[in-house]
Amino acid sequence: MPATIRRLAVAVALACTPALALAQAPAKGRTMQQVIEASTPADWRALDPQDTLYLDLAGGRVVIELAPGYAPLHAANLRTMAHEHYFDGLAILRVQDNFVTQWGDPDAEDKDKARAFGKASRTLAPEFERAIAKDLPFTRLPDGDVYASEVGFSDGMPVARDPRAGKTWLAHCYGMVGAGRDNGVDTGSGAELYVVIGQEPRQLDRNIALVGRVVQGMELLASLPRGTGALGFYEKPEQRMSIRSVRLAADVPEAERTPLELLRTDTPTFSALVESRRNRRDDWYKVPAGKIGLCNVPLPVRKPATPAH
Amino acid sequence: MPATIRRLAVAVALACTPALALAQAPAKGRTMQQVIEASTPADWRALDPQDTLYLDLAGGRVVIELAPGYAPLHAANLRTMAHEHYFDGLAILRVQDNFVTQWGDPDAEDKDKARAFGKASRTLAPEFERAIAKDLPFTRLPDGDVYASEVGFSDGMPVARDPRAGKTWLAHCYGMVGAGRDNGVDTGSGAELYVVIGQEPRQLDRNIALVGRVVQGMELLASLPRGTGALGFYEKPEQRMSIRSVRLAADVPEAERTPLELLRTDTPTFSALVESRRNRRDDWYKVPAGKIGLCNVPLPVRKPATPAH
Repeated sequence: MPATIRRLAVAVALACTPALALAQAPAKGRTMQQVIEASTPADWRALDPQDTLYLDLAGGRVVIELAPGYAPLHAANLRTMAHEHYFDGLAILRVQDNFVTQWGDPDAEDKDKARAFGKASRTLAPEFERAIAKDLPFTRLPDGDVYASEVGFSDGMPVARDPRAGKTWLAHCYGMVGAGRDNGVDTGSGAELYVVIGQEPRQLDRNIALVGRVVQGMELLASLPRGTGALGFYEKPEQRMSIRSVRLAADVPEAERTPLELLRTDTPTFSALVESRRNRRDDWYKVPAGKIGLCNVPLPVRKPATPAH
Repeated sequence: MPATIRRLAVAVALACTPALALAQAPAKGRTMQQVIEASTPADWRALDPQDTLYLDLAGGRVVIELAPGYAPLHAANLRTMAHEHYFDGLAILRVQDNFVTQWGDPDAEDKDKARAFGKASRTLAPEFERAIAKDLPFTRLPDGDVYASEVGFSDGMPVARDPRAGKTWLAHCYGMVGAGRDNGVDTGSGAELYVVIGQEPRQLDRNIALVGRVVQGMELLASLPRGTGALGFYEKPEQRMSIRSVRLAADVPEAERTPLELLRTDTPTFSALVESRRNRRDDWYKVPAGKIGLCNVPLPVRKPATPAH
């Protein structure tokens, strides 16, 4: 809320009955903070080291959760590339305001200089959408969407659905990571990745493979200087921030991992969180929206209370 | 489109009839670039110097268009503050990732140090919404909205409407500028301003006065380091970027102005532009969205072909 922090009200307007006042406000009257404080360990899940990439930059670490349920080929290729240190010493190539930050091999087009792919594939079949399946989690949001007939969350990822076509796909929300491609649908590999840093570019949905989501460190990718070339590409090599390394968490010694827990998106606690954001309850808000868009739902992340194993 | 620029296709798939092929593709088949190239001078309007603020930072100039049709009291107060050089030497106080960049007086709460308001008001009546009126332009978008029953553009500003209540309001899209307030609805003045730098925070709509829109220089405000304090406030004074000056364009000698033209939002050309973004026609896109959200519509800005005046 855009008031100064000095003046920020901390009072919380609880729309609860007297009998409940000392225990817990009903779900409809709770703030997000109250929902999180009332959560139990079962409401959280640890990041799976096999599905976690660390993008280490001079400024710190970006933690990316892969979405193998939606992009299994890309996830597998990225695990291979990380294992082979494909990205180490490559660079951030492009930052286009209100769109994407993109990184990869500056010499990708130069046969003599291009980074070797090793055991990784140079191209992959498109993974722009997949079939809806019974074993695929889906927590539907109640307020609709401009672009798709249904939207919600699946294993912590924002997704859209077309039940008539039997298809579902990851949605381009802030922080989502995708695999750049050329004009051919099968020209992507994960060797060039982008992350959304602005308003949801949902027109990209079903046109390109999203591979996961940044769960920590977005500010490192979103606050970079914008490139001044076409599409936000940096015009001079020295403007590009270097990538120290990209590693699969499973390949990193446990002491060097970043243990994180994410709020599950298939629980009553998550539904209560969504409701807390549809109708803000703190004193600052005068007209609760009563609605929420897919990309406006926050996905809480925390350090584990106890060290991870 | 997240492909490298080196590989970026420039071919345009025109869905036009042979008879039209050499003249002009029909509106449904044109790209945004083609729509803009086919525009006439009447499709553009110059910024009014009385409604234009220049926020000058070390990195360059941010140009803000005020929206006096929706926030006349705030626009008038900001003109007064700019005229009196209220903002000169103040600072950017807060950058919260995927939310807002905010600037104003770091000493606002310190009676001894706070910047004097001069003839400007310290507080203003809320201007969170206004009555729908016949003389208020409104170009409605065809694809709906999660938060409001109608959305579209009014004099270049993204707006939402509730026809049953007879109300309309500016919408919190990327680049929109608002006036911070405390918990009381009448506690804002324009002395503390914020700009949206992420996913549309539409829950703020009707809760705070939007006063205008950044039409040039957003990258200067969106690429700042995020503050590490609560709500993204900078924790140390030396982290804050200083504001060189804020001026009303009308107060600036013509030679020092930044002449810009904006595409009008009440013309067939604008409708064609919206259509060109609902259904992308270049070869890269395989599945045109067929829809567009309010905050996804680009609002073209250009330097005038001939010098202003």
